[in-house]
Amino acid sequence: MPELISEHACFGGLQRFYRHHSSAIGLPMRFSVFLPSAAAGERLPAMFYLAGLTCNEETFMTKAGAQRHAAREGMILVAPDTSPRDTGVAGELDAWDFGAGAGFYLDATTAPWSEHYRMYSYLLELRELVIATLPVDGERTGIFGHSMGGHGALVLALRNPDLFRSVSAFAPIAAPSLCPWGEKAFTGYLGADHAAWQRYDASELMRTMQAPFPDGILIDQGLADKFLTTQLRPDMFETACAQAGQRLEIRRHAGYDHGYYFISTFMEAHLRFHRENLG
Amino acid sequence: MPELISEHACFGGLQRFYRHHSSAIGLPMRFSVFLPSAAAGERLPAMFYLAGLTCNEETFMTKAGAQRHAAREGMILVAPDTSPRDTGVAGELDAWDFGAGAGFYLDATTAPWSEHYRMYSYLLELRELVIATLPVDGERTGIFGHSMGGHGALVLALRNPDLFRSVSAFAPIAAPSLCPWGEKAFTGYLGADHAAWQRYDASELMRTMQAPFPDGILIDQGLADKFLTTQLRPDMFETACAQAGQRLEIRRHAGYDHGYYFISTFMEAHLRFHRENLG
Repeated sequence: MPELISEHACFGGLQRFYRHHSSAIGLPMRFSVFLPSAAAGERLPAMFYLAGLTCNEETFMTKAGAQRHAAREGMILVAPDTSPRDTGVAGELDAWDFGAGAGFYLDATTAPWSEHYRMYSYLLELRELVIATLPVDGERTGIFGHSMGGHGALVLALRNPDLFRSVSAFAPIAAPSLCPWGEKAFTGYLGADHAAWQRYDASELMRTMQAPFPDGILIDQGLADKFLTTQLRPDMFETACAQAGQRLEIRRHAGYDHGYYFISTFMEAHLRFHRENLG
Repeated sequence: MPELISEHACFGGLQRFYRHHSSAIGLPMRFSVFLPSAAAGERLPAMFYLAGLTCNEETFMTKAGAQRHAAREGMILVAPDTSPRDTGVAGELDAWDFGAGAGFYLDATTAPWSEHYRMYSYLLELRELVIATLPVDGERTGIFGHSMGGHGALVLALRNPDLFRSVSAFAPIAAPSLCPWGEKAFTGYLGADHAAWQRYDASELMRTMQAPFPDGILIDQGLADKFLTTQLRPDMFETACAQAGQRLEIRRHAGYDHGYYFISTFMEAHLRFHRENLG
């Protein structure tokens, strides 16, 4: 059972922070949960939110303004940390875009990262954990995220469409094999062989697929986002979806940048999208 | 003119951060503004939000989820820092409840604090500044805040009901002369003479008044707030309002604590209250 660290009343529900031992990571991990008020015994749809570089399990719950909408829609929200912490790996804290706070939601295969940096498997473990211990309906779970977390959400969903049945992203790193953040992370965590990178690249994955999300995929992207053309490249994912026949709505917003003022503005639309998809 | 430090699109409007030289403080100060989209030339009502201990000009804008409601209501939001910064006063950073981050929205009269710790006068200066430089309707400005900032909002409004025409608070320090936070701050900033404290104590001020806010005053208070009986004492302010014939609604909420999960839950109701009062 996860250990409850703190609990706060919020929009008629409960904002909780948990700690537990992760078998995938091999270390303690923290995550946050928003539980709307619900009839006793009712199982609710749940959305997993993956945050971006430098964030942790608290960022989404304090900055995104999502609880208000989740309370209205009757959805549970779950947010993990963005990497293992205090792993003892030398250099873990040296960069803001690699190591701690930058797990990239993949299972590292390169020593010394491969022992604990296993966020891909961790997300699957965390999904099982919350279904087993919270009133989550395992048939109605989805995933979304921002930037590095948008990449993670797309990859987790494309590789597990039977588990994550609805997916969206805010300004995702949509073609990580082709951008500096992704190249650095994939080289460090997965090695130089690009064949190993494809399984963690949403645009590459989509090319091999046949429209796994018939309800569509939603992406919001600010046009004043300074990372748009260098790191994010939603156009690459757009092309891959078109080739795969996958419905995709990319809403491009003039003036909006990469931060949580952008994310909070469009949070309601994403939760409505997922609520409709999950039923 | 204040210097624009950064600007972010947010809920169809603009989230801005400014820096300017304050004549009241004698040093540079920072503040944040949310500007909803508005017809050119239109002057909008504005709400000043005063944050609590350890916060700064960013806290409210990142955690309270207020921009969504302000955008809908067509209101400007302004949030100052909670104290001067880098004043050179020895010991300024030694405590979290006195000095930097803890200006208590008063004008200190005790050396060495009296040179720069003048947040009461600063708020009046800031109000003039935003009326002069932003599309704020000077006839429709109000004030609200949280904890130490709830104390500040009540005091600023009670002493200037012609300037701040609507007032509310989340979990305010409602009788600061009688609680440890207030006693420490007032002794340090104002000296030991309790006569000087009365002008910064909302419950004391209200006793001398004749219902300055005919539209009423709104306070939300969590009943799981660990500071309720030791530091906040809304019951003292309630008694003073009853004696003064001042309409006051204190909404007491089971389960809610002292943090921004509480504040964000009731933010919409406060902005609606002010929008109705300000017209």
